[in-house]
Amino acid sequence: MGLKRRIAFQGEPGAFSQVAANQLTGDDSVLIPLETFEEVFLSVVNRKCHGAVIPIENTLHGSVHDNYDYLLKYDLSIRGETFVRVVHNLIAGPGVQFPLIRRVYSHPVALNQCRRFFEENPQIEKTPFYDTAGSVKMLMAKGLDDAGAIASATAAEIYGGRILKKSIEDDRRNFTRFFLLERPKRGPRFIKPQLIRPQSGVRFKTTVVFSTRNTPGALFRSLSAFALRDLNLTKIESRPLRGKPWEYLFYLDFLGHVEEPASRNALGHLAELADMMRVLGCYPIGEPAANTGSPGRK
Amino acid sequence: MGLKRRIAFQGEPGAFSQVAANQLTGDDSVLIPLETFEEVFLSVVNRKCHGAVIPIENTLHGSVHDNYDYLLKYDLSIRGETFVRVVHNLIAGPGVQFPLIRRVYSHPVALNQCRRFFEENPQIEKTPFYDTAGSVKMLMAKGLDDAGAIASATAAEIYGGRILKKSIEDDRRNFTRFFLLERPKRGPRFIKPQLIRPQSGVRFKTTVVFSTRNTPGALFRSLSAFALRDLNLTKIESRPLRGKPWEYLFYLDFLGHVEEPASRNALGHLAELADMMRVLGCYPIGEPAANTGSPGRK
Repeated sequence: MGLKRRIAFQGEPGAFSQVAANQLTGDDSVLIPLETFEEVFLSVVNRKCHGAVIPIENTLHGSVHDNYDYLLKYDLSIRGETFVRVVHNLIAGPGVQFPLIRRVYSHPVALNQCRRFFEENPQIEKTPFYDTAGSVKMLMAKGLDDAGAIASATAAEIYGGRILKKSIEDDRRNFTRFFLLERPKRGPRFIKPQLIRPQSGVRFKTTVVFSTRNTPGALFRSLSAFALRDLNLTKIESRPLRGKPWEYLFYLDFLGHVEEPASRNALGHLAELADMMRVLGCYPIGEPAANTGSPGRK
Repeated sequence: MGLKRRIAFQGEPGAFSQVAANQLTGDDSVLIPLETFEEVFLSVVNRKCHGAVIPIENTLHGSVHDNYDYLLKYDLSIRGETFVRVVHNLIAGPGVQFPLIRRVYSHPVALNQCRRFFEENPQIEKTPFYDTAGSVKMLMAKGLDDAGAIASATAAEIYGGRILKKSIEDDRRNFTRFFLLERPKRGPRFIKPQLIRPQSGVRFKTTVVFSTRNTPGALFRSLSAFALRDLNLTKIESRPLRGKPWEYLFYLDFLGHVEEPASRNALGHLAELADMMRVLGCYPIGEPAANTGSPGRK
């Protein structure tokens, strides 16, 4: 089994990152749960894992700036993206019937995203726990017969729980976007997605990060690199640069493969206009898995 | 006391939103804790409160898209901004000494932001709870003598807790930006910040939201409205429009007062170029309170 690819993710087995990892990597992968995002990055940098899957933004909660920071700090390359709809299920042990349930465990964020369920079932007490998948694990380990947990279907499967109610979340527009990361293939600080080449039918997206000086119109000039070449942007976000008032870091995604002439020229032009610029990766456009709806195809 | 202004916020008394509300409103305000963000918006729409304080973005966790959605859904106007550094303190009951503490309660996000503290004190068990301030309230109500809570200094003050260790968070770059909202003064859907006028020495920021069509360069053209008038942007963020693939909503902040000619012209120009455009407010630039450092003055 030494040939299997090791893919790191943050959280307990059954966390939404594992669902994303299942979508992004094949059956020949072993998924390695780690405690923190930084450990996840380091596991790939230090060659303990072949790749990693990290959340990068959520439709309700915004970008995961921590992970953008680690993308800048560590030399890893984005090799894929996917979207996971955050579906919360009520899960209990095999013999437990719904009317018996008096307490439901989960991460407070998940509990708060199932407000309607708790309003309709006032007999059930919300009980905060560390982790969505971890609450199923605990439930099963302790054999609780009057309690449930809120987590992914994957968590139910892993720990042998049974789904009593599917999709009890209030808002179905809750999607998380994940990146698959690997070490860059050639040397650090000069990332080229060599293995992926534009093929007919596959569209690519490129993610860059850049900073601009403190002048009005600096962003406008930077975007001219893309507008003048008719390249379509799919994400832009500013973030203040620490300790440098009025200077900004920008995250930008555009449609195109870095080896296509228009993209290559645009990146060259952007490098000229920006103070700092780095290509974080080029990867096939991700689609949500079947039956999970669309987050607007961001 | 019927003359006091009622200001709504989400969370328990002592939540970071209350810290922000204290920074944004004077002593003549009564702060009203509510359970959800939507209740907070509705309390102002329905004239039960005069204003509200909401978090809009965090330096580690990104924008609070929920609240941007409510800003679009409800006709409230941004009248002020402020920044709060998220400082986590270890709090316990008056007689409790640090060596006695075996469990510490708080929201899991706060517990995870104090990882170093727990590594250095392995005798203490992390115990997830709903809310940072709520964990202090519970601790004091139950008179626990072997437990602590992690929350703001304001929470310690409100519930009579004692701060045993200050600022135990791992990362001091953790700032949250808050908005003060009020009903617009003249009619709905046509927001003008009438009470605030440009005064010498006070700089203003304006927040707009707009959407663009699915064409390359659409954002570039929209930004020309600002670049051509030398207006400085301080935030830009894209968000996919639900159900409309490749169409985007943009949040944008720029330095300027809506009654200044350059700003007024830029907004007119933007309205011409965008599919939809709304001014969400114009307000004096916020600064973090003294001794809390700077988030980069976003």
